[in-house]
Amino acid sequence: MGKNVVVIGSTGSIGRSTLDVIRNNPGRFNVSGLCCFGNIDALIPQIEEFSPGFVSLFSDEFLDRLKYELRRRKLQVKIFCGEKGNIKAASSRSSDIAVIAVVGGIGLEPTLAAVSSGKSVCLANKEALVCGGSIVMARAKKRGVRILPIDSEHSAIFQLLENVPREKLKRIIITASGGPFRNFDSKALAGVGVKEALMHPNWSMGAKITVDSATLMNKGLEVIEAMWLFDLPLEMIDVVVHPQSVIHSMVELSDGAVLAHMGRADMRIPISFALSYPDRLPVDCVEPFDFRKFSRLTFETPDHENFPSLGYACRAAKIGGTMPAAMNAANEVAVNKFLTGEIKFVDIPRVVLKAMRAHEKRLVASPALDDIIAADSASRALAETICRKLGKADKSV
Amino acid sequence: MGKNVVVIGSTGSIGRSTLDVIRNNPGRFNVSGLCCFGNIDALIPQIEEFSPGFVSLFSDEFLDRLKYELRRRKLQVKIFCGEKGNIKAASSRSSDIAVIAVVGGIGLEPTLAAVSSGKSVCLANKEALVCGGSIVMARAKKRGVRILPIDSEHSAIFQLLENVPREKLKRIIITASGGPFRNFDSKALAGVGVKEALMHPNWSMGAKITVDSATLMNKGLEVIEAMWLFDLPLEMIDVVVHPQSVIHSMVELSDGAVLAHMGRADMRIPISFALSYPDRLPVDCVEPFDFRKFSRLTFETPDHENFPSLGYACRAAKIGGTMPAAMNAANEVAVNKFLTGEIKFVDIPRVVLKAMRAHEKRLVASPALDDIIAADSASRALAETICRKLGKADKSV
Repeated sequence: MGKNVVVIGSTGSIGRSTLDVIRNNPGRFNVSGLCCFGNIDALIPQIEEFSPGFVSLFSDEFLDRLKYELRRRKLQVKIFCGEKGNIKAASSRSSDIAVIAVVGGIGLEPTLAAVSSGKSVCLANKEALVCGGSIVMARAKKRGVRILPIDSEHSAIFQLLENVPREKLKRIIITASGGPFRNFDSKALAGVGVKEALMHPNWSMGAKITVDSATLMNKGLEVIEAMWLFDLPLEMIDVVVHPQSVIHSMVELSDGAVLAHMGRADMRIPISFALSYPDRLPVDCVEPFDFRKFSRLTFETPDHENFPSLGYACRAAKIGGTMPAAMNAANEVAVNKFLTGEIKFVDIPRVVLKAMRAHEKRLVASPALDDIIAADSASRALAETICRKLGKADKSV
Repeated sequence: MGKNVVVIGSTGSIGRSTLDVIRNNPGRFNVSGLCCFGNIDALIPQIEEFSPGFVSLFSDEFLDRLKYELRRRKLQVKIFCGEKGNIKAASSRSSDIAVIAVVGGIGLEPTLAAVSSGKSVCLANKEALVCGGSIVMARAKKRGVRILPIDSEHSAIFQLLENVPREKLKRIIITASGGPFRNFDSKALAGVGVKEALMHPNWSMGAKITVDSATLMNKGLEVIEAMWLFDLPLEMIDVVVHPQSVIHSMVELSDGAVLAHMGRADMRIPISFALSYPDRLPVDCVEPFDFRKFSRLTFETPDHENFPSLGYACRAAKIGGTMPAAMNAANEVAVNKFLTGEIKFVDIPRVVLKAMRAHEKRLVASPALDDIIAADSASRALAETICRKLGKADKSV
C-alpha cells in the first residue's frame, strides 16, 4: 500500500528531493498532497507524475493559471489556497506523513497543524522550532507525534543519539561548512555581492538558507532547533567549522567517545531516513562513500568576529521566550533585502542585532502562539524600517 | 560489591591500563586474579594494591622469586603456574569477567577456558580469534557468553553496530595508522631497525603489536578478528589508512551513512567500555576531545606493495581453516627474530609468505583445537628455520 505523504513546499529544493526519494521507492510512498507558494511550472509536472489528492497554493495570484493548466491537461485535483490551505493540507486526514519543506517562520503554523493532526512530521523547516519550539514540542508530546528532522545535521544527531541514554551524553557538536566567505576578513566581507553569497561550497540549497549559511545564522538557527528537538540546554551544544561538510554532526559521550555521522552531501539521505524511520531504506541513487575523494577533513573554531549572527542566535536562545522569533523575523527580512540588493551582506547581522535590542522591552517569556506571531510581525516591520535606513545610508556613501 | 575481574597479562600494556580503569572506579570492580609471564617487579605492586585472590605465573623460572617477595612483604595469595595456571585463572569461578590481555597465539587457550566457564570475556588478544575463531565463537554462542573487544578498532565497530540490524550494514571500515614507515619506499624500508619500528606515531603499545602495526600485519589480524567478532565475510571489511588515529573505525549503512567512532588514542576508553558494558562509565582520566588539537584528519589507501602482510592475512582469511593460525605463528616468530636482530624488517612478510605456502599442503579446512595447535607449532618450527637461513644470508651480504 505505501504511506501517504503530503509535501508542504514541494517545488523548493527539499520538496523536489523528497519527491525524488518517493520516485525511487515505488510502492512505499504515495503523494497525498502537494503545496507550494506559486511555482505553477514546477507544480504541474509534479501533479502529472504523482497524482496527489489535493494541491495547495500559498499565493492566490497564481490560482487562475493553475486551474487553466489543470483543465488544459484534463487533470483532476482538489485545490486549497492561502495560509489556511496550507494548514488544511498539513492536517489532511488522507496523509500519514507531513514533510514540512517551506522556508521561514511561515512553516510554524503548518508544522503545528500537522503535529496536532497526529501524523508523523518530517521537518526541514527549522524556523518552526526556532520560533515556536515550546509550543510545537509540547503539542507533539501530548499527541505522541514523532518529529523527524530532515536537516542533515539534526538527522545525523538523531541517528547518533538513538539508544544513547541521556545521562551518557556529554554534548552534541554541530558541524558548519563555514560558508563561501569562511576566510574573508571584514574588508573583504564588506564587498561581497548576492552572486558570491549564493555559491555554497558543498550543498545545493535554496537562496535563503544559502545566505544564512554564509552569515552563519543558519548554524545559529540549527543550535536553537537542536535545543528543542533533543531537549538540550545551550551549554551542551557546540559548533565546529568543518569546511568539507563530510561529517554532518557528532555527539560526545560520557567516556570521551565521539560518534560522527558522515557521508555525501545529498539531502536525499536524511529525507529517506526521515520518511522511512524506523526502517532505513537503501539510497541507491547516491554514490557510495569513497575515502579517496574525501581524503582530508579539517576543523576550525567559528569566526565570531566576522560572523556575529551565530552568537546573536545563541543569545536569543538564552533569552528565550519570543526573542528567537523576533530574531528570526529580522533575519528573514534582512536576507530578503540583501537578495534584492537593498542592503549589504554585512548589514544582515546589524539588522538582526537592532531588532533584537528593540524586542527586549516587548519580550514575552512564556509565549502563546499569538505572542509569537505578534513578535514575528513587529520584528518584520521594524527590520523593514532598519533596512530602508541602511539602504539609504549605503547609497549616500 | 563490584564485579570480580581476572586480568590475564596484567603487567603488559593493556593489563596495566585495565588496572588503571579499575583503580579509577573504586567499588565497581575487584581484582580476583592477576596473571603475567614473569615480571615480578611489576606484579608485586599490583598484588599489594589490588589484593587478588590468586596470581598465576606463566614461566615457572620466576616462581621462587615471587614466593620470596611475597613472604618478605607478608602478602598472602594463591599461586598458579604455567599454561595450566593461566587456564585455571581464566576459568576461575571467583571471577565475573576475564580480561585477556596477553599477546600472541598463547591467548587462545585462556580465552577458550574463560568462554567455557561462562564468564564475560574482554578480549584484547586478537590472535585467539585469528587462530581459533570458529571454536571460540561456537563455544561463546553455546554458553551465551558475550565477547567484548578491547582493541580500539573493534570496540568502535562494536559500539557503532549496536542496534544496527545486519541487513542495514553495507560494510565496516577499519582504520590503520599506517605505522611509522607509512611513506617509506622499499629502499628506505630495507634499512629500518628495531628502534624505529618501535616508535609508533599515535599509540603506546607493547613491542609485538607495535612491530605488527609497522608491517600492517596488525591490520590483517584485525580484519580476521572482525570477521569472527561480527560474523562478516571478508568482502564486507575494508581498511583505510588514517595516520592521525582519531577515527577508530567506521561502519557504512545501506543508505550511504557512514558512522565513525572517534576520540583520543587512549586504551582506557575501550577497556572501560568493555568492563562496564552495557553501561558506559565516565573516563575522567582522559582529557576531553578538542577539535583544535585534531584539526586535520586524512585518509589513504594502504600501500600493499611495500606492506604485503595485510594482503597475506586477508589471503589466509580467505583460505580459512588452519591457515590463519599458521600465518600468525610465522609472524610471531618473525617479529621476535626481528626484535632480537636476527632478521631484517622486510624479512618479516617473507617469512610469513613462505610459511603460508608450506602450510597449504597441510591445511585442515574445519579444524579442531588440536589441529590449530599443531598448525601453530609446525609453522613456528618452520619459521625458525626460515629465519635462521635469512639471518645467515643477511650476514653473508
